[in-house]
Amino acid sequence: MAEKKRTTIILFSGEYDKAMAAYIIANGAAAYDHEVTIFHTFWGLNALRKDNQAPVKKGFLEKMFGKMMPRGADKMGLSKMNYLGMGPKMMKQVMKKHNAMPLPDLISMAQEQDIKLLACTMTMDLLGLQKEELLDNIEYGGVGAYVGDSEDANITLFI
Amino acid sequence: MAEKKRTTIILFSGEYDKAMAAYIIANGAAAYDHEVTIFHTFWGLNALRKDNQAPVKKGFLEKMFGKMMPRGADKMGLSKMNYLGMGPKMMKQVMKKHNAMPLPDLISMAQEQDIKLLACTMTMDLLGLQKEELLDNIEYGGVGAYVGDSEDANITLFI
Amino acid sequence: MAEKKRTTIILFSGEYDKAMAAYIIANGAAAYDHEVTIFHTFWGLNALRKDNQAPVKKGFLEKMFGKMMPRGADKMGLSKMNYLGMGPKMMKQVMKKHNAMPLPDLISMAQEQDIKLLACTMTMDLLGLQKEELLDNIEYGGVGAYVGDSEDANITLFI
Repeated sequence: MAEKKRTTIILFSGEYDKAMAAYIIANGAAAYDHEVTIFHTFWGLNALRKDNQAPVKKGFLEKMFGKMMPRGADKMGLSKMNYLGMGPKMMKQVMKKHNAMPLPDLISMAQEQDIKLLACTMTMDLLGLQKEELLDNIEYGGVGAYVGDSEDANITLFI
Repeated sequence: MAEKKRTTIILFSGEYDKAMAAYIIANGAAAYDHEVTIFHTFWGLNALRKDNQAPVKKGFLEKMFGKMMPRGADKMGLSKMNYLGMGPKMMKQVMKKHNAMPLPDLISMAQEQDIKLLACTMTMDLLGLQKEELLDNIEYGGVGAYVGDSEDANITLFI
Repeated sequence: MAEKKRTTIILFSGEYDKAMAAYIIANGAAAYDHEVTIFHTFWGLNALRKDNQAPVKKGFLEKMFGKMMPRGADKMGLSKMNYLGMGPKMMKQVMKKHNAMPLPDLISMAQEQDIKLLACTMTMDLLGLQKEELLDNIEYGGVGAYVGDSEDANITLFI
């Protein structure tokens, strides 16, 4: 029996279009029967935030980061043509017109396809994000977990 | 006979310097006898746009995207130090001085070296780009085509 | 005896957070006994600049680039939430609070772990950076050196 192919993606960026690209590639690779891990670090953690405010205690700096960063996939801006929020609206409108999946649906699909969603505990700590604020049924780990999943991977990407 | 090495690059970004990096690595890998694919998706599709306007019919949103995005490799801005267009001019001047190839020449060289230039049909659809607007002699495909070319690749990059 | 695993990272970006991510992954992979190369190209070269001005002769354009680009790892901005320099300060403060290593320390650690720090000679030439301006004990090469180190790598990333 042949070994399973494997794809791992580091999602560092916090933009809607880059997160979309990450999840489209991840879902695509899973459809071709790859084992897939998405390691969410730095601003990429925002894709995993719940959109309601979780009742957690934070220090001042952590509160600031929490307020300044987008609360969940649907709130992210674009990497280009952001234009005070017009870009993401245009993008979402054009996606709707062409029946393309919005980012939150791509994330649900990834969970249904058993893609491992890994949250970087080191940057959670730095940015003051707590498990209660992130989606359920994800995994937690550091760079060691990423390296472990990636060293036999066929496709490795940093987005 | 040893199997050929393989490099695949996803060009997501629409900036002159990032596209330059993608094409320099691609041409370099091809010179070392790798089979190379560049998968152009999202803003990276702009590197493949012809600089003249093709007579195609578009909806309103697609026209907007078409107008807002750079028409071809030579019109792209920099990812840093753009300074209202001064950055790209300085960069091109300094490249000329040092006899470095400008981006359109790097793209021609890639075509001469049989690098596969793949345009992402899903994002072409989203951004309203049509085949008539893109360079000749390129290929078209989705994430499946990318995964197919990448799963035995030695180097996989997302730019 | 099993062959050593290998990780190669292209550091193209000149932002503090992206360079931090590159060096954290590199140090992590080295801790898991990978041979690691970081190929610094374009704005990523700035991570290797010494913070004092080296007495070198430059043309006008090269001087301009030299002045406009950050002089060393500690002077870099963030890719997000830069806010006229407030972002990097907040980030460094929060890192201090959580005992996270600042970027210059991550770079020293990489050198102690024998990670190969490779500076792209082609972009050094373009941006007018000279060896005297960069850290000691690094290596120099072009895209060929990168491809050579990467074609048997397990993890390849572009940051």
